[in-house]
Amino acid sequence: MTNEFDFIARLRALATDPAARGLNDDAAVLEIGGQLLVVTHDMMIEGVHWLQGQDMADVAWKLVAVNLSDLAAKGARPIGIIVGQTIPDEEERFLSGLRDALRAFNVPLLGGDTVSAGQGRTALGLTALGSSVSGIVPGRDGAQPGDLLYITGPVGAAMMGFEALQAGTEDNSLAFRRPMPLLAEGAALAPHVSAMMDVSDGLLLDAWRLATTSGVTLAIDTAEVPLGAPEERRDDALRWGDDYQLLFTASPTAELPARAIPIGTVEEGEPPLLVDGIAIFEPEGLGYRH
Amino acid sequence: MTNEFDFIARLRALATDPAARGLNDDAAVLEIGGQLLVVTHDMMIEGVHWLQGQDMADVAWKLVAVNLSDLAAKGARPIGIIVGQTIPDEEERFLSGLRDALRAFNVPLLGGDTVSAGQGRTALGLTALGSSVSGIVPGRDGAQPGDLLYITGPVGAAMMGFEALQAGTEDNSLAFRRPMPLLAEGAALAPHVSAMMDVSDGLLLDAWRLATTSGVTLAIDTAEVPLGAPEERRDDALRWGDDYQLLFTASPTAELPARAIPIGTVEEGEPPLLVDGIAIFEPEGLGYRH
Repeated sequence: MTNEFDFIARLRALATDPAARGLNDDAAVLEIGGQLLVVTHDMMIEGVHWLQGQDMADVAWKLVAVNLSDLAAKGARPIGIIVGQTIPDEEERFLSGLRDALRAFNVPLLGGDTVSAGQGRTALGLTALGSSVSGIVPGRDGAQPGDLLYITGPVGAAMMGFEALQAGTEDNSLAFRRPMPLLAEGAALAPHVSAMMDVSDGLLLDAWRLATTSGVTLAIDTAEVPLGAPEERRDDALRWGDDYQLLFTASPTAELPARAIPIGTVEEGEPPLLVDGIAIFEPEGLGYRH
Repeated sequence: MTNEFDFIARLRALATDPAARGLNDDAAVLEIGGQLLVVTHDMMIEGVHWLQGQDMADVAWKLVAVNLSDLAAKGARPIGIIVGQTIPDEEERFLSGLRDALRAFNVPLLGGDTVSAGQGRTALGLTALGSSVSGIVPGRDGAQPGDLLYITGPVGAAMMGFEALQAGTEDNSLAFRRPMPLLAEGAALAPHVSAMMDVSDGLLLDAWRLATTSGVTLAIDTAEVPLGAPEERRDDALRWGDDYQLLFTASPTAELPARAIPIGTVEEGEPPLLVDGIAIFEPEGLGYRH
């Protein structure tokens, strides 16, 4: 089994269509009848994306939230979702969490495919459809030298929540169990940014992806990154995902309509990342795979 | 674990939106900018939907074909596909089959999500987007008493192909390994039918679904069903899926623009099926789960 980066690069080579931005990205963008449609698809696998034995209501919520977060990063309003799943063991809880998420985000369930898992682990997939609010859909490829790098809020809260959950207490685990997609923020920011994505796999790893897709260097001052974890966990928090903040670049003169903290600058050329002045060329060790 | 029918019924209860036809169906239909967009999502799991050790190129082809078949049943032209997958063990073959299918069906790959499976079985998901060719999108709920029931071609060829494959020969296994979605036929038929779906899980099981969704009885004369298998396997062929023929109802006066064989009639009320005069109320035993 090769690593994920290689596989995605080879998958991308199959996509001859210029619309195939979704392979550099978390979402595909299509123009249909004069509207910009944004389509995302994320999968979650038992034991990989959630702890065995975790409340399936939280898993269902997260399945919805992570896809809506991809829409948020495109400045899109959700139109609806389509779920695909093996029948989860705790279907009662799964349906309960799905109901919570549909209500919380006011998004209709449009369809679904349910398959038997046999004796295998539960696998979940979700497709979310959205429409661009402003008609401007940011990609990951637009960061320009001279821009500033911003994040909408703290990272590390989900990490602390995960650890609380693993330790067997429900204390402070909400940020991990029930993440909130920043839909309003994404829609407001979209016309003002040069590139945007959500932080799902770790700030440094996702920044590396944005940098390589844009062909620029992101110089990050980690001391500026707001934390949802104790200061001594800063290094871990920079590598943990699941907080679903928006990471974006914008001109220093842009007037931003949502709260965002500048954490670095965009520079020309290589390496993809300068983290506190240290050049980083490879993505290994920048994010957690969980 | 409850059965699939119960789970889907309960999932459906979450969908308050009238657009949620996708839960009675294999596809969701949305109006966007004056166009009818059709969205399908199917999952496939190793050991459930394909034999362990089967050529991943064939599996990739089938993943694409089964979703395009759902578009065919809606009379929709493919716009593009988005794949979600754990990294398959034989990624080279998977990518090769995916490339074959993209070319054969002239459909662009728009995006994808690749996740690590850990030590688990490979799980695949695919979302296909299409646009209605005629502006008329058949559902499963429109069959009317007095209509005739039709199928576009033989069933059982995929069953024979599966058995050839299991027996270790590649002879005649093409129908199972590389099914063809009937896109042209579906697009031509859509304005002329009262209800339509593709036969993915077995003719009798899928007919039972169409009947219950429409609230009618389908009286099927099984001797009229064309076979892609020896006559002595007729009973099995009626219960095997994977041939991806289109099953539809239409008025006896409809002039059909594609080849179709009448195999029964639509009658009022219960039971959902009358198979050679025998009333069938429950779906158990009507289709193979494979």
